[in-house]
Amino acid sequence: MKKLINQPEDFIPEMLRGLYAAHPEYIAPAEGKPACLVRSHKKEGKVALVTGGGSGHLPLFLGYVGEGLLDGCAVGGVFQSPSADDMLTVTRAVEAGRGVLYLLGNYNGDKYNFKMAGDMADMEYDIQTMSVIVGDDVASGPAPEEGETGIRRGVAGIFFVYKCAGAAAWEGMELAEVKAVAEKAAANTRTLGVALTPCTVPRVGRPSFSIAEDEMEIGMGIHGEPGLRRSKLLPADQVAEELVERILTDLPFRRGDTVAVLINGLGGTPLEEQYLVCGKVHQLLGESGICVHRTYVGEYATSLEMAGLSVSLCRLDSELARLLDRPADTPFFHQLEKGGE
Amino acid sequence: MKKLINQPEDFIPEMLRGLYAAHPEYIAPAEGKPACLVRSHKKEGKVALVTGGGSGHLPLFLGYVGEGLLDGCAVGGVFQSPSADDMLTVTRAVEAGRGVLYLLGNYNGDKYNFKMAGDMADMEYDIQTMSVIVGDDVASGPAPEEGETGIRRGVAGIFFVYKCAGAAAWEGMELAEVKAVAEKAAANTRTLGVALTPCTVPRVGRPSFSIAEDEMEIGMGIHGEPGLRRSKLLPADQVAEELVERILTDLPFRRGDTVAVLINGLGGTPLEEQYLVCGKVHQLLGESGICVHRTYVGEYATSLEMAGLSVSLCRLDSELARLLDRPADTPFFHQLEKGGE
Repeated sequence: MKKLINQPEDFIPEMLRGLYAAHPEYIAPAEGKPACLVRSHKKEGKVALVTGGGSGHLPLFLGYVGEGLLDGCAVGGVFQSPSADDMLTVTRAVEAGRGVLYLLGNYNGDKYNFKMAGDMADMEYDIQTMSVIVGDDVASGPAPEEGETGIRRGVAGIFFVYKCAGAAAWEGMELAEVKAVAEKAAANTRTLGVALTPCTVPRVGRPSFSIAEDEMEIGMGIHGEPGLRRSKLLPADQVAEELVERILTDLPFRRGDTVAVLINGLGGTPLEEQYLVCGKVHQLLGESGICVHRTYVGEYATSLEMAGLSVSLCRLDSELARLLDRPADTPFFHQLEKGGE
Repeated sequence: MKKLINQPEDFIPEMLRGLYAAHPEYIAPAEGKPACLVRSHKKEGKVALVTGGGSGHLPLFLGYVGEGLLDGCAVGGVFQSPSADDMLTVTRAVEAGRGVLYLLGNYNGDKYNFKMAGDMADMEYDIQTMSVIVGDDVASGPAPEEGETGIRRGVAGIFFVYKCAGAAAWEGMELAEVKAVAEKAAANTRTLGVALTPCTVPRVGRPSFSIAEDEMEIGMGIHGEPGLRRSKLLPADQVAEELVERILTDLPFRRGDTVAVLINGLGGTPLEEQYLVCGKVHQLLGESGICVHRTYVGEYATSLEMAGLSVSLCRLDSELARLLDRPADTPFFHQLEKGGE
């Protein structure tokens, strides 16, 4: 295990210390609890958005707390759900008179704890909460039935849900309207990734799985959950073709659709490779008659130092495109009004 | 070599294809040459800023071309200087009537080629050029004498030079004034890093150096140049102490100074570790009576998938602080007006 850390058990507290030191203009701990991260300038009179999840995925989850995006995040240990108590603390801190929407990935610990936090917020503090559970990873099970959550895991595509719902809340929409936007973004987002190397959780001290020097795994989850298939490492173009084809046929995306693209590095893969894959993805989408509205490339949801990347597509209607284009400003994500200058 | 690439010789052309596909609103190839990257919306009537260097360091160098920052970048092969011809093409494309300032790292190939490009721009096209050569890496030689370039290599701290000079040009300063700002930023910036793993240049196909599983190297360059010392991997706090102490004593930074901090990931090190080190750096600066004006954490100058990070400090006077705080917007770097909201 080759990491710039001190004691493994101090990894997340010490990371949070650095976060608050670096970004005091953006974020602060609610009630002095570092794991309860909220905006340092509370915005009154809007629907509040809260997320949460395990650490080890920066900038996910906490990195999207800021202007035009989320209001708070409960921070768990590495790959561990935050506690319901911390979720409740965040909920109480960010609630601004118009209710709280929870946006979370489809993981049992997070779902269970957010459910409990929401119940406590309702019963003890009379705070209305709603939840949208995101499961964008096409590798992790069949597509859910209409109105069901299903078993698909949430991965990098949750960014699109955050971004659209965040802008909707900032525009002044009501809780149920913001929830509907989040559900629409989630329903139209699909992600598939490829992993080349494992990562090591500091307190475990050994890689989360083993994979040969010449192998890759399509569809591996961001905690090392098994993927669709393992094979010899293929050229990037072939990998991109498989990812795009599986994504397109899943929703399905159709000729004439407009999408946003996210090429997401898993932590250890250089930006150069992400852009190389991005070029192929754009070519394939063009050949499929799909129009790209805008493209994001970089690390949006990682798995510590895992090498690999994921491709996410979000099908946009005019409302989602407008919301996606709205400005936002967090420690990890900054977007100016489109068109600029 | 475990990379998402196709043929190694296509690595950079295919990366550039993806870059232009992802960011057409920001960047375009000058004269149709992908290695000659310029802003897609030329800004007239300002001093133009040009950089250039080898690939493999994203977001360095090309990632800082955009509003409030640079106007163009000549893109070399992996760890190779761009050609003087490409630098000249960029120079001609971005020149907007008030001269061109070259900002480059202190590497012989880049210096030689930029010198030639500047001479050709002057003689053949009557374009005035000036250069500022950045050598911020305290590990790579003694501090230069006043007015000398010295032998120190340029690394992540060049970001501060870009940012301040970029804002100065955007404010409308003259060529000599922008050059003076860049020189001041360069003279007040110091960087030191630590490497934990090597990286592999695609066309070489094997790691650039070897280092044991329990070793680190303080001061290694971003092309794997030898550092100050190699030792057993130490706890992050001890590494941070060594980096900060060597940086502080070099300039030297003094009690009461105000600085900007850059914690820069070299490619393979998770953001979590960068923030953990950031927390310790802030603590050490506080104990030294040094005030932090603002902090940047993330990948600003990488070495493909190398694990490790660097710490840069830039001592600010009121002019540099003002320029650093100005907004900027490039594919890789977005900064809103400070104070926000």
